[in-house]
Amino acid sequence: MAVGLQAPGKLHPVGGIRLAAAHCGIKRNTSGSDLTLIEMAEGTTLAAVFTQSHFSAAPVRLCRQHLATESSPRYLLINSGNANAATGEDGMRAAIECCDAVAATVGLSREQVLPFSTGVIAEPLPVTPIVTAIPGLIAELGDDNWLRAVEGIMTTDTLPKAVSEQLSIDGRTVTITGMAKGSGMIKPDMATMLAYIATDAGIAQPVLEQMLKRNVATSFNSITVDGDTSTNDSCVLIASGASGAVVDLHHDEFMQALRGVFERLAQAIIRDAEGATKFVEVRVEGAADDADARRLAFTIAESPLVKTALFASDPNWGRFIMAIGRAPLSKLDPDRVDLYLGPVPLLRDGLPDPGYREEIAAAEMARDEITVRVDLKLGEGSACIWTSDLSYDYVKINAEYRS
Amino acid sequence: MAVGLQAPGKLHPVGGIRLAAAHCGIKRNTSGSDLTLIEMAEGTTLAAVFTQSHFSAAPVRLCRQHLATESSPRYLLINSGNANAATGEDGMRAAIECCDAVAATVGLSREQVLPFSTGVIAEPLPVTPIVTAIPGLIAELGDDNWLRAVEGIMTTDTLPKAVSEQLSIDGRTVTITGMAKGSGMIKPDMATMLAYIATDAGIAQPVLEQMLKRNVATSFNSITVDGDTSTNDSCVLIASGASGAVVDLHHDEFMQALRGVFERLAQAIIRDAEGATKFVEVRVEGAADDADARRLAFTIAESPLVKTALFASDPNWGRFIMAIGRAPLSKLDPDRVDLYLGPVPLLRDGLPDPGYREEIAAAEMARDEITVRVDLKLGEGSACIWTSDLSYDYVKINAEYRS
Repeated sequence: MAVGLQAPGKLHPVGGIRLAAAHCGIKRNTSGSDLTLIEMAEGTTLAAVFTQSHFSAAPVRLCRQHLATESSPRYLLINSGNANAATGEDGMRAAIECCDAVAATVGLSREQVLPFSTGVIAEPLPVTPIVTAIPGLIAELGDDNWLRAVEGIMTTDTLPKAVSEQLSIDGRTVTITGMAKGSGMIKPDMATMLAYIATDAGIAQPVLEQMLKRNVATSFNSITVDGDTSTNDSCVLIASGASGAVVDLHHDEFMQALRGVFERLAQAIIRDAEGATKFVEVRVEGAADDADARRLAFTIAESPLVKTALFASDPNWGRFIMAIGRAPLSKLDPDRVDLYLGPVPLLRDGLPDPGYREEIAAAEMARDEITVRVDLKLGEGSACIWTSDLSYDYVKINAEYRS
Repeated sequence: MAVGLQAPGKLHPVGGIRLAAAHCGIKRNTSGSDLTLIEMAEGTTLAAVFTQSHFSAAPVRLCRQHLATESSPRYLLINSGNANAATGEDGMRAAIECCDAVAATVGLSREQVLPFSTGVIAEPLPVTPIVTAIPGLIAELGDDNWLRAVEGIMTTDTLPKAVSEQLSIDGRTVTITGMAKGSGMIKPDMATMLAYIATDAGIAQPVLEQMLKRNVATSFNSITVDGDTSTNDSCVLIASGASGAVVDLHHDEFMQALRGVFERLAQAIIRDAEGATKFVEVRVEGAADDADARRLAFTIAESPLVKTALFASDPNWGRFIMAIGRAPLSKLDPDRVDLYLGPVPLLRDGLPDPGYREEIAAAEMARDEITVRVDLKLGEGSACIWTSDLSYDYVKINAEYRS
């Protein structure tokens, strides 16, 4: 079902980063991997953002605690199939036991291990199979295991999502490789359902924080499938320095490559969105400010009536007007609104374009990749959001998720 | 598909109110009525609320203009099949022509006629068939035509929605009869997709305004199908005084009957919601304030993942937790949250209830009518919202709406 998404191409190893994955038994009806371990060489810097959900999962809370006392964690342990969310003190104890098992095996402190979980909410995390699998995972760590690692974090994803870029900096080859999972319950709020991006550039930790926040805003925080924010969203950016090259926020070429990796991973989540038959870009321009532009873009992107029209390839663009009309904006003048479907003008100054012909709009709506553009002609605010359509299969996948 | 909704029972005539309906040709693929006229006797008071959409339709804007200069309109003209929205000056001229045609036929001013439209957005309103049909409608006005009148305002509704109540006040029989339409694009914001409630009690106009606002808040403004607000929502309350009884806000028995009519009409819209297989009440208690309670109730009610779980009768209540977690609340303590499915406790103080057994929750989820109750145990704020599930048929109806 994925829209314009292929299996990942060559995933370049990142110096200083080793990975492993295994099936430990959390996912009961598949032999696919459900546990991934990532090791970071000493001296690696790390920045992370997490879900803003009031019900953030135990591993999210434990990550925050560990990062408060330990700025250089050495291992990331990620399970799929169980979110360890709404599991109370038992859930917190389970997350701690998993970290302890890694720490004891490699001789580090608990705080140097960060735990992540994704899957069903409000079921107890099975600790024993995880703890049992850890020595095997550590034995199998390797720098060329990115594809196996991403398979270990998938849930309803139909394809692994990973991206790799290389560039030359001061004569040294610098690699950025990242992976993400996520397909439903997607409206990340500060981060998304598990994304890990690593580089072997050397980057000071405060700079890495800035890079992460700046790139999350225009990638994982600019996508929505269903407006539903997970309890477990996490995004981690790590820099090992193994390449010998050092970069900062002013290194344009590195920043552009990094932005590309974030955007392609975020778009991969939308291309593989549950039931998606379309990849839709919603661009808003001329809003009073960027916050208004984002509110309008998300209102259009999340409207069930807009999404079903997109699924039907029906140029019933009265529904775009409905969505613009109900968006919670500080300022809008309906008599100035321009609306485009791809290159086709629909509304100009709030009125149907005199040259409008339904067959041209219908051809545009029939494409797999669609751009909806709104210009409010009020100010400088703009936003770009990626989303999917609402199909029978979205309902099917989510009605049958646990069956 | 309607959930627990039958065709209306006996609809008592309301003294002073006459109605008529006809098929004039706006709906092309049906012989069903598409034009309704309501006449109000001289001395009738009227209060109305309209959509807050930035793109409010031409008839909504014309209603507001007419009510600004004329406090006692005498005719309501309602067409279905075309919303006359996003139609610019041509649309406004079309609405004026329709009002003029009624006014000229009966010898009143244009401002004494209020126009309403519902249907497809951004297509020109065909004026000629409407104007041509008006003399026939006026000839057929009768006080026992409520059922025909409601059929003239339906679009994707599968059943007419109308409710009638009688009570005795000071030895006089007082009638309240109301009708509504609406099935999709339902999250009214101040009012809903066309509702008209009439009584033959005598009610001063400022009092009627208060009654309308108070009752809309707990009825049409407390429902959502898809979170999508129409460009044409309107709700009108009229009081002819023909019964001879006079009431005000302090008449408890009348106020209770009126609230019942509003609530049953609002619930009828949800019972007939597009594709609905469930009628769901979401109750929030113990919130910091009522606004927080409403935000939380709507977040749960509009979550696509909650709605697909309801459709599947799957007690995957991790999704309720997800929705609570992402709700934009001023205050929430996850360790105090109680969550119930009907009488079944799911969460107590933020943790799965120790006595929880999936088969009991599954039986509760399998019902046609479901109550989800959340107690935040923080304050006195409460809200009650009615909604439907998200089914294959919702997608089908909205993917095929214009085909």
